[in-house]
Amino acid sequence: MQTPRNSAVVGSGLVGSLLAMYLLKRGHKVDVYDRREDIRQIKFSGRSINLAVSVRGWHALDEIGIGNEVRKIAVPLYRRAIHILDKPLYFQPYGKEGEAIYSISRGALNKMMIDLAEKAGANFIFNQKVWDVDLPEAILYTGSSDKSERKANKYDMVFGADGAFSRVRHKMQRRSMFNYSQDFLKTGYKELTIPANEDGTHKLDKNSFHIWPRGKFMLIAMPNTDGSFTCTLFLPHEGDISFDSLTSERDIQQFFEAYFPTVIEVIPDFIKDFMEHPTSSLLTIKCEPWTYWDKVALIGDAAHAIVPFYGQGMNAGFEDITILDELMETYGDDWKAIFKNYQISRKPNADAIAELSYRNFMEMSTKTADSSFILRKKIEAKFYNLHPEKWVPLYSRVTFSRNPYSEALQQGDKQRLVMDEIMHIPDIETVWDTSEVMDKIESLITK
Amino acid sequence: MQTPRNSAVVGSGLVGSLLAMYLLKRGHKVDVYDRREDIRQIKFSGRSINLAVSVRGWHALDEIGIGNEVRKIAVPLYRRAIHILDKPLYFQPYGKEGEAIYSISRGALNKMMIDLAEKAGANFIFNQKVWDVDLPEAILYTGSSDKSERKANKYDMVFGADGAFSRVRHKMQRRSMFNYSQDFLKTGYKELTIPANEDGTHKLDKNSFHIWPRGKFMLIAMPNTDGSFTCTLFLPHEGDISFDSLTSERDIQQFFEAYFPTVIEVIPDFIKDFMEHPTSSLLTIKCEPWTYWDKVALIGDAAHAIVPFYGQGMNAGFEDITILDELMETYGDDWKAIFKNYQISRKPNADAIAELSYRNFMEMSTKTADSSFILRKKIEAKFYNLHPEKWVPLYSRVTFSRNPYSEALQQGDKQRLVMDEIMHIPDIETVWDTSEVMDKIESLITK
Repeated sequence: MQTPRNSAVVGSGLVGSLLAMYLLKRGHKVDVYDRREDIRQIKFSGRSINLAVSVRGWHALDEIGIGNEVRKIAVPLYRRAIHILDKPLYFQPYGKEGEAIYSISRGALNKMMIDLAEKAGANFIFNQKVWDVDLPEAILYTGSSDKSERKANKYDMVFGADGAFSRVRHKMQRRSMFNYSQDFLKTGYKELTIPANEDGTHKLDKNSFHIWPRGKFMLIAMPNTDGSFTCTLFLPHEGDISFDSLTSERDIQQFFEAYFPTVIEVIPDFIKDFMEHPTSSLLTIKCEPWTYWDKVALIGDAAHAIVPFYGQGMNAGFEDITILDELMETYGDDWKAIFKNYQISRKPNADAIAELSYRNFMEMSTKTADSSFILRKKIEAKFYNLHPEKWVPLYSRVTFSRNPYSEALQQGDKQRLVMDEIMHIPDIETVWDTSEVMDKIESLITK
Repeated sequence: MQTPRNSAVVGSGLVGSLLAMYLLKRGHKVDVYDRREDIRQIKFSGRSINLAVSVRGWHALDEIGIGNEVRKIAVPLYRRAIHILDKPLYFQPYGKEGEAIYSISRGALNKMMIDLAEKAGANFIFNQKVWDVDLPEAILYTGSSDKSERKANKYDMVFGADGAFSRVRHKMQRRSMFNYSQDFLKTGYKELTIPANEDGTHKLDKNSFHIWPRGKFMLIAMPNTDGSFTCTLFLPHEGDISFDSLTSERDIQQFFEAYFPTVIEVIPDFIKDFMEHPTSSLLTIKCEPWTYWDKVALIGDAAHAIVPFYGQGMNAGFEDITILDELMETYGDDWKAIFKNYQISRKPNADAIAELSYRNFMEMSTKTADSSFILRKKIEAKFYNLHPEKWVPLYSRVTFSRNPYSEALQQGDKQRLVMDEIMHIPDIETVWDTSEVMDKIESLITK
């Protein structure tokens, strides 16, 4: 058992709330600060892509005993439903029979997590902005507004779970030797909604992740338990077809008619949604170090914000917590060792999932519409079924396993080279499921 | 002729001062702000690696007519003098007969440049810190201290020439879609001084760039006109042999005795210098965009801070100015086009010299001590003499030409592959200057 420490978590988002529960379980005292108001008391603002909880996320939730509670608001997605223009709908299973990612509304999950953390003993302090952090002393200077008096709150340790624009990280950033990068994607996004049918059922297949790949842009839809779908349109900020170029109702109407004719039927308010909802940016943030002695640690998006195309943002943040928990078990009261090894363990994996997520935009928006890519996936799936011990597909390794992300990246690159060679076999379209092809993969992968 | 604009340059360093002269020449009004006091009125603080002015730098100085003035305080360096432990001193020419880089004290040059810019009509405002920048309005909010009243200074355009920790960039950084990275080297540096002989002559060969390569660390020395040398010790911040590990006088004494025994003879105060001089950090900064409409532009280190191992930091900053000047010639009053094309032209070259500079630490600290590297350089030099039109060595292209840095990087990579192959020729040590080897290079390079 660890000696109880007085700890502060900055940020009451998903990672902050879950971290609070893990710290409480180990006997620590936890205050959770948030500059925003209590989201349980407001209508959630939207502007969020639905979450996809997968194995890493469930593991973190189950370990602390709240997995089943969360499952109540989750919808399993067993496959991609790919809507190619003027072609029949195509379904692509995500993994083996029964393997699924789980769609959850971020707002609904966050409210539930705050409730659960509060019940476990966390002290939530809303509407308090952290204005400054004394890193060596673990003091948070907080206040409700720019003009209000700053209060000094002294802790044994502080966790920065305050997201991509982390205030805690910002303080660390001003020290020498702090490496940092922020890299915006030229593609932005906007949320749209497919409402439920009048009887509360879903307008599209409920257990699919829907995707309309259109090359430089795409639309996705993820179900909610109430029959609606949260849709996200990913589109370049600038250029010929872009958020900048779609300004009038007529532009928007023509754009949807040309590229998403079937979507119009299920989003009655697409023009209104498009005009009223904000356009958001996507960025990757990397930094190092993540920790300051045994006093301060960054976690989740504050340490490693990634683009959403692998559905791993929250899962990676939750995995930070389970790794931190394992290190608390190993090192007990040696918090210097806990924080040091936390960074050593997590940083390469955060970099790997950042890279994989960045690459996956191309896969989702372009390749899912490509027949050669579809064939490639079929061949991989077949080989995986024949030799599950020799070939775990990259997507499965990331999504349905807890293998380190860095290994997934490495193995994925190796598999890609093998499949590049396989796809060059003459007439691969017809011979793909022969034993010759399967043997060839086996010989290449064991080389 | 351009319509005169009211312009502000933030930063009175080398790039700020030279930019002021170029703007004045085109008829613009120029205020130069600096948060520091006028360096002409103080003893220069040290903590600066001597500058190496090369072709790009001289071009910028000559174009505005101050090259000859600057040459008075410059010492030409025709070669590297490589001091390998327990081996005779080895000289390696930098380029062809007569080609040299020029050593200048940063302080002395900066003072001269401020004088010259002031004489040309620039209005220098010292001890005024820029607290905030209104980008769309080109307003600088300045004041002498945190508590003094902020003054709003409205301009037609603002240039951020305020170095690696640019305040102007910091303001741009807080906007969405601003990409930024800061990347610290694990190696830091400290300045030492080799004083002049009593008769004012130099203790080491005056026209060489002296280097003591020791693998993970190195010492360099560059001459000043007064007979002294400015030395820089590059050493890891942490680890077995590092700034962190050298804390006592005894540690320092032993370190110099072991690795720089001949240097001790010429730096009488090496222990005092080491203890008293600060240890500085080295970092690479990249960002994008560099400009805001026709209102604000970053230039020099503010846009692209690089590590000093290619001696190109100031040269690259000066080249920004000559490119900007060419664009003023081309686009006249269309400042949107000037700023846009300035970034398009310079950003890839800034990225390339950042990469080349980063790589050059390895070349200087390790490879210059390596006999295979020395042979490689000799072979390249011979081929260059035979076929100057077919092979400009990378160092010469960067240092003695105004070819874009991005081309230099590309050509350098190509040449490296050729030389890798050449170095695998059996008995290359003995056959290296035969016509067979020269022919082989020729056939490989034209492939």
